[in-house]
Amino acid sequence: MNTLLIHAHPEPLSLNGSLKNFMVGRLQAAGHTVQVSDLYAMGWKAAIDADDSLDGAAGERFLPDADSRLAFANGRQSADIAAEQAKLEWADAVIIQFPLWWFSMPAILKGWFERVYANGFAYGVGEHSDHHWGDRYGEGRLAGKRAMLVVTTGGWESHYSPRGVNGPMDDILFPIHHGMLWYPGFDVLPPFVSYRVSRMDEVRFAATCAALGERLDTLFETAPIPFRRQNAGDYEIPSLTLKPHIAPGEEGFGVHLA
Amino acid sequence: MNTLLIHAHPEPLSLNGSLKNFMVGRLQAAGHTVQVSDLYAMGWKAAIDADDSLDGAAGERFLPDADSRLAFANGRQSADIAAEQAKLEWADAVIIQFPLWWFSMPAILKGWFERVYANGFAYGVGEHSDHHWGDRYGEGRLAGKRAMLVVTTGGWESHYSPRGVNGPMDDILFPIHHGMLWYPGFDVLPPFVSYRVSRMDEVRFAATCAALGERLDTLFETAPIPFRRQNAGDYEIPSLTLKPHIAPGEEGFGVHLA
Repeated sequence: MNTLLIHAHPEPLSLNGSLKNFMVGRLQAAGHTVQVSDLYAMGWKAAIDADDSLDGAAGERFLPDADSRLAFANGRQSADIAAEQAKLEWADAVIIQFPLWWFSMPAILKGWFERVYANGFAYGVGEHSDHHWGDRYGEGRLAGKRAMLVVTTGGWESHYSPRGVNGPMDDILFPIHHGMLWYPGFDVLPPFVSYRVSRMDEVRFAATCAALGERLDTLFETAPIPFRRQNAGDYEIPSLTLKPHIAPGEEGFGVHLA
Repeated sequence: MNTLLIHAHPEPLSLNGSLKNFMVGRLQAAGHTVQVSDLYAMGWKAAIDADDSLDGAAGERFLPDADSRLAFANGRQSADIAAEQAKLEWADAVIIQFPLWWFSMPAILKGWFERVYANGFAYGVGEHSDHHWGDRYGEGRLAGKRAMLVVTTGGWESHYSPRGVNGPMDDILFPIHHGMLWYPGFDVLPPFVSYRVSRMDEVRFAATCAALGERLDTLFETAPIPFRRQNAGDYEIPSLTLKPHIAPGEEGFGVHLA
């Protein structure tokens, strides 16, 4: 199978760099074809701007959404964006690897999503009617592909536990899992998170690789997170609120898991 | 009072640009001194790297945390970072204004936090002992200052309601409010969020300015979000989990509000 690894750490000799090398080797040894987008090494441009279209802004003002739609539709996107979209189309699975900085992904990776997820590619896809609100949240261009986060933190696991001061890791990652991966159709696998990595010695590194290797060996069998499909009947349209009889009385991120 | 406005939109003629201009005028008319960090106009560098220290990486490997600490302590930070820190020290209130892209802030703004929030400046501050775990979450260098988000979304308000498909707005913003603003000590005000802004006509723009103006007029009186202080007795140290008798049986972001 084809696996794309998106890697966002500035230092090749970091723990993240070592885990990336381990993942590439493990996947290749299992017979997969691997492409790596090493965002720092590529000098990835993080900020959306009018240069993302070969034609610049279409009108007097730069309109991020409309200009992205036009450039995508007309094959006039910046070459770096088109190349990453081609990798996504090629991939059967995508691994997104990063250190958790300020409770989200590094800026360079956020900018990869913002620019590669063009209007017409990852959003603004499909009909909008009274029974279907775009091909999103379980449908979309990336449906049928799998995605998994591989994340490191400096903080302790307890700090990210259900009553930990940082908030639960599942909730911190929800906007990525649900909002950025499930949204254009990916099946989202449970994340692989390594905590307190400043204290990682060789013994723990070996154990981490063993556990991560097992996740890679089962990449195409692991059950995805059971997010609800937006257009399959659980939500009112167009308010897109969960119907009253589904998880009655409950609120928050958790209600979007079946 | 001194107010710093951090603005992250690529187009000066956008709604966000118009709201920025409105805010500057309103604050100045009320007698405040205003500085604006217009990140796109400044060409803000989003990605952390070894160039963030005038000395480059201190060792063979670039260590984002350790090198940031050294550069901050020795006055060897890149000039753009030091300038933004000086603005934060100067400010009594900070307004952070952005369009919500993929359920978080734009990459360029995320990169502002990552680079300006140096080790020793916004994290890695204060003692770590069995009764105090760093000056953070209610203590820290930015304590005594106020912060408020001003956010626009394309999606409808119902999509961000407690049972809306995107997840509740308060939960989507929690990693920013709690993890990036309360963390170094800011008092965090309730956000000002404008939904479905692609349908903003002149009447709604006027109403939005009126409501936003009122928030600016009361910037120094509005009650902050009542996040719990990490070192004031509610949390076990060092596990940093909420003590069992506080919000017993509850979990998730909400338990961190008193």
